[in-house]
Amino acid sequence: MIIVMKNNTPEEEINRLMKELTSSYDIKIQKITGSQCTVLGLIGDTSSIEVDDISRDSRVDKAMRVKQPYKKANRAFHPDDSIFEIGGRKIGGKDIAIIAGPCSVESEEQIVGIAEAVKASGATFLRGGAYKPRTSPYAFQGLEAEGLELLKIARAKTGLPIVTEIMDPATLDQFVEDVDIIQVGARNMQNFSLLKQLGQTKKPILLKRGLSATIEEWIMSAEYIMAGGNEQVIFCERGIRTFENYTRNTLDLSAIPAIRKLSHLPIIIDPSHATGLRYMVEPMCAAAVAAGADGLIIEVHNNPEKALCDGPQSVTPEGFSHIISKVAKYAAVEDRHISGVR
Amino acid sequence: MIIVMKNNTPEEEINRLMKELTSSYDIKIQKITGSQCTVLGLIGDTSSIEVDDISRDSRVDKAMRVKQPYKKANRAFHPDDSIFEIGGRKIGGKDIAIIAGPCSVESEEQIVGIAEAVKASGATFLRGGAYKPRTSPYAFQGLEAEGLELLKIARAKTGLPIVTEIMDPATLDQFVEDVDIIQVGARNMQNFSLLKQLGQTKKPILLKRGLSATIEEWIMSAEYIMAGGNEQVIFCERGIRTFENYTRNTLDLSAIPAIRKLSHLPIIIDPSHATGLRYMVEPMCAAAVAAGADGLIIEVHNNPEKALCDGPQSVTPEGFSHIISKVAKYAAVEDRHISGVR
Amino acid sequence: MIIVMKNNTPEEEINRLMKELTSSYDIKIQKITGSQCTVLGLIGDTSSIEVDDISRDSRVDKAMRVKQPYKKANRAFHPDDSIFEIGGRKIGGKDIAIIAGPCSVESEEQIVGIAEAVKASGATFLRGGAYKPRTSPYAFQGLEAEGLELLKIARAKTGLPIVTEIMDPATLDQFVEDVDIIQVGARNMQNFSLLKQLGQTKKPILLKRGLSATIEEWIMSAEYIMAGGNEQVIFCERGIRTFENYTRNTLDLSAIPAIRKLSHLPIIIDPSHATGLRYMVEPMCAAAVAAGADGLIIEVHNNPEKALCDGPQSVTPEGFSHIISKVAKYAAVEDRHISGVR
Amino acid sequence: MIIVMKNNTPEEEINRLMKELTSSYDIKIQKITGSQCTVLGLIGDTSSIEVDDISRDSRVDKAMRVKQPYKKANRAFHPDDSIFEIGGRKIGGKDIAIIAGPCSVESEEQIVGIAEAVKASGATFLRGGAYKPRTSPYAFQGLEAEGLELLKIARAKTGLPIVTEIMDPATLDQFVEDVDIIQVGARNMQNFSLLKQLGQTKKPILLKRGLSATIEEWIMSAEYIMAGGNEQVIFCERGIRTFENYTRNTLDLSAIPAIRKLSHLPIIIDPSHATGLRYMVEPMCAAAVAAGADGLIIEVHNNPEKALCDGPQSVTPEGFSHIISKVAKYAAVEDRHISGVR
Repeated sequence: MIIVMKNNTPEEEINRLMKELTSSYDIKIQKITGSQCTVLGLIGDTSSIEVDDISRDSRVDKAMRVKQPYKKANRAFHPDDSIFEIGGRKIGGKDIAIIAGPCSVESEEQIVGIAEAVKASGATFLRGGAYKPRTSPYAFQGLEAEGLELLKIARAKTGLPIVTEIMDPATLDQFVEDVDIIQVGARNMQNFSLLKQLGQTKKPILLKRGLSATIEEWIMSAEYIMAGGNEQVIFCERGIRTFENYTRNTLDLSAIPAIRKLSHLPIIIDPSHATGLRYMVEPMCAAAVAAGADGLIIEVHNNPEKALCDGPQSVTPEGFSHIISKVAKYAAVEDRHISGVR
Repeated sequence: MIIVMKNNTPEEEINRLMKELTSSYDIKIQKITGSQCTVLGLIGDTSSIEVDDISRDSRVDKAMRVKQPYKKANRAFHPDDSIFEIGGRKIGGKDIAIIAGPCSVESEEQIVGIAEAVKASGATFLRGGAYKPRTSPYAFQGLEAEGLELLKIARAKTGLPIVTEIMDPATLDQFVEDVDIIQVGARNMQNFSLLKQLGQTKKPILLKRGLSATIEEWIMSAEYIMAGGNEQVIFCERGIRTFENYTRNTLDLSAIPAIRKLSHLPIIIDPSHATGLRYMVEPMCAAAVAAGADGLIIEVHNNPEKALCDGPQSVTPEGFSHIISKVAKYAAVEDRHISGVR
Repeated sequence: MIIVMKNNTPEEEINRLMKELTSSYDIKIQKITGSQCTVLGLIGDTSSIEVDDISRDSRVDKAMRVKQPYKKANRAFHPDDSIFEIGGRKIGGKDIAIIAGPCSVESEEQIVGIAEAVKASGATFLRGGAYKPRTSPYAFQGLEAEGLELLKIARAKTGLPIVTEIMDPATLDQFVEDVDIIQVGARNMQNFSLLKQLGQTKKPILLKRGLSATIEEWIMSAEYIMAGGNEQVIFCERGIRTFENYTRNTLDLSAIPAIRKLSHLPIIIDPSHATGLRYMVEPMCAAAVAAGADGLIIEVHNNPEKALCDGPQSVTPEGFSHIISKVAKYAAVEDRHISGVR
Repeated sequence: MIIVMKNNTPEEEINRLMKELTSSYDIKIQKITGSQCTVLGLIGDTSSIEVDDISRDSRVDKAMRVKQPYKKANRAFHPDDSIFEIGGRKIGGKDIAIIAGPCSVESEEQIVGIAEAVKASGATFLRGGAYKPRTSPYAFQGLEAEGLELLKIARAKTGLPIVTEIMDPATLDQFVEDVDIIQVGARNMQNFSLLKQLGQTKKPILLKRGLSATIEEWIMSAEYIMAGGNEQVIFCERGIRTFENYTRNTLDLSAIPAIRKLSHLPIIIDPSHATGLRYMVEPMCAAAVAAGADGLIIEVHNNPEKALCDGPQSVTPEGFSHIISKVAKYAAVEDRHISGVR
């Protein structure tokens, strides 16, 4: 960590700060005295030091981290890609995982119907919302426990492992029992008490990026889970919030090379939530795979009555099938493949 | 709500959508057929309709809400300012609440010392972190339960009601028992299961704005708490995340007139976390009061050894006292006053 | 355009506004009277109405455009892709244009050397900065006129058409004379007087997206040029400014499907400036092509002395050659090709 | 400037970079060798070094500026507030300047009428748009030269100095001749060729902050003008673009203490454009003055026919008068005053 002292900070204060730091943390400090200011270089394990705590000090102008604050998620300490085997499917490596399903579980007929359709097109996992985060307390909150039961029925009929979002630590045991991958939503990415509890389980976690989370904050949230002992974390980029509102969010595909460089954990992309526009799902899926994504999570609707005005771009089961066959071609360029498509 | 249909959507599809909506919700629909497109005007209670669900429909171009989706937090249905009496202090109305204290509770000596100092300068509430949200699992997480005990001791010695942040629903009973105002941090602003549980209590809630939360999303989070029956919600603006990084966040003071117009609930400002710069705390406090804020939350440190290089602007107890006397003058312009300063 | 009136606006005021609008513009207005408010639907050509002007009216709650405000750039009125032939190279259609070169022109040896190297690897255009936008008046401002001369020498030796940025309308004649594609930088995207003057020329314009420009504002800037009679506009996405600072900007690849849907003009991607990270150039180039980009603009350095620590990812001529061969494979998936690679 | 080298950069490369830098710039370099990486501390005048140029180097991990890159605008080298006397009015110091007028000049009757009304309420300068930046080429572009003539008539009748925006360097001589303060709009804040030409004049410049300009970029744009010899630059904060769209932009009032600390130049606030909401103008004006602003720029409309539904908050001449009397009270707290109100 580099600490830039405020101009004209008395020498004795600089020395006092150095003493405070070396007595609180297991580090060494080197000092550069410039014409304008003094800079301290902290050497050693600074992972337990929060940059904000240092910056808050009245003697400090700026503090900047040089060494990454994460360990277990850090590729530097784990050079090989992590590959997770979940319900017989792989996430990471040469396989591209396809997680598909509806936004909400609505009925047995609906979820089973979609599960069968997406499996036939190459999906490797089934997703569907049972407990739904909604901005309004008056909106439909999902079928909750009953939704989980319906997902289990769909899994039994198709063999597809299930992915669904947890909202409340109180339901954790139920999720560990019933679900194959536990999803942490963007709004809970920094719900640290939930992350700590997930770290105590042995379930794979799909960790969505917060709406305004930096890459580093996102990896630190994975580190929370891993620090507890659960090393099966999968990153999911779902769009960040920017000034642009033509798309619902701005899909940050540069997160793919960033995560692949900084961490050994897999990263998948959710173009449906990121863009909020059906016609963008196919090109963004192709782009994600070309950029090196380990998987895709795609919202699939099953609404025959809308077929009339839905073009091929819309994500009905037909549209999904079309997207997967397109994506498979891009995957082949790097000699990767969609597990379900042989 | 206004729904703009995609160009060339077949008439039968428009009619089918109208039927789907009128059968799902208690609304009437009026249709305008323009030269370019058809627009539907939904009339009635649309609060249970999520704009995103409508926008997702393949026949829809855009949907825009006209009527606000919140009720209990809405000034339209509650024209008078809400004024809460907490531990003998008022929040709202002519009183300007001053919530002061350290970022973290560290020791009895520290918290009692600061509590006595800030009370003497006019603080009306004591804040201090017991359970701390930290981006790193390796950073100090707060004294937790012990921190709450120390806050209670400080309250016993000074009479200042205490405000502290809840991280985990599992600690809710303890907070209801021990704390005067329960703070919901920015990172939990859309932790809907926590909000629902807080709605079941009778404790005042200090609801911090999320780093990238819109004014409407923020009010909807208050609505979650109020919908459960707890109407004592206090908004706290603490800066939003933008491209600017000279300040830690960007303090959005326009949130004050916005909240005062849209809601009857009080709003207070946290300039310390918003700017991350000590020298900005005083001018931003003055600006907040001039803009109509109902209170301020100010981080106060007690570090004599740093006095050497701390100027009057730094927020030691001395700096705090200076800020409060300045703020009291601005409050007087509107014939308001700081409860603790007579 | 949809205009939502403020609640309780007197009927006579609504009628007066309708009269004001119909007398100022060639439109018809339909009124919906809802339970909560009145909505006006403007029918006809609303392209000359600025939404902000309407929103500013004290009787208006919100105004929302339904019909796109652009005409010449609008795919609705020009369904086929525009394909431009420039110096014997095509931009648009099946060809993927590769514009490569250094950030700044430094010397004849440097620019000719890079031009020959990138041509050999498949570049179809040469870029290089002669007039440089710099945030500091004390930083090197480019070789200016001499830089243009050196670009012409490089063009003469390689046959590659040249692309360079204009900073000042005073140099317009010189650019029209010397340059094959005139680049408008992100900081000048809304320099409307420059855009109008470019509209008077017959030169192709490479229009970079502003750091915080919406898709619609960007297309409107193209419309400025086209309205003047110059229809050869090429969009260039170069990253938008967001809260994330791991990358220099956030590359918005969803701009590719957006522009392709909304406009008939070609769009190319600049991953070098967008990310500011060499290791991201290759994956972002692949992603851009997979998403349907019509070209790439890649910064290529020629600094042998740095070869030691530059890996294959770094964009020396060798790195560039590696990127192009990779990109060509992705282009082939859609049966597209890099003009220079056969 | 601090340069953090990439891990494992060979010693010889670090030394070569040090040589390259010391031979290109008049600086000394100190090296810290840490356990993880090597850090270079550049000592001396680094103002001509662009951080981006250094960061682009393949051997460099990060570069961070410690010393501010601006000189003439820097308070460190000019501790006293700059106070400008323009047409007999002061900007800076104890005086709070009030610049008022319509968005666009429409007619002699309109501009003279508003000028007389705002002067009567305490305005010290008249603003009005003659050349208008419009996102659409089809929207009204202003009365242009005729608009300038009308402003001169209004000045002749009221004595108020005039402020209006320049769009094109070609009109610079005309502006120097006719206008008292030349406004540079947000969209031209980094139109460096325009800034350089303004630096050659002796006219005061009102420099609006770009929609996504950092505080440092904004000051650097002032430095461009000052480097040319024109030291009369006035900053104007008019809102930055963020994810929030309840307000048109987000007014960043923390820019006031920031500019006052970093620079000696005056800063004024434009709440009308920043918020786009009439009801926010008054509280944001009060807040700006409380935060230490040197002036306000307020849009005033003269539309009697709208009086019916305009409340006192709307900025007709009556609303303006109300705002000024309120603001004067806040100014008095710091013993400041509105020049026009005695």
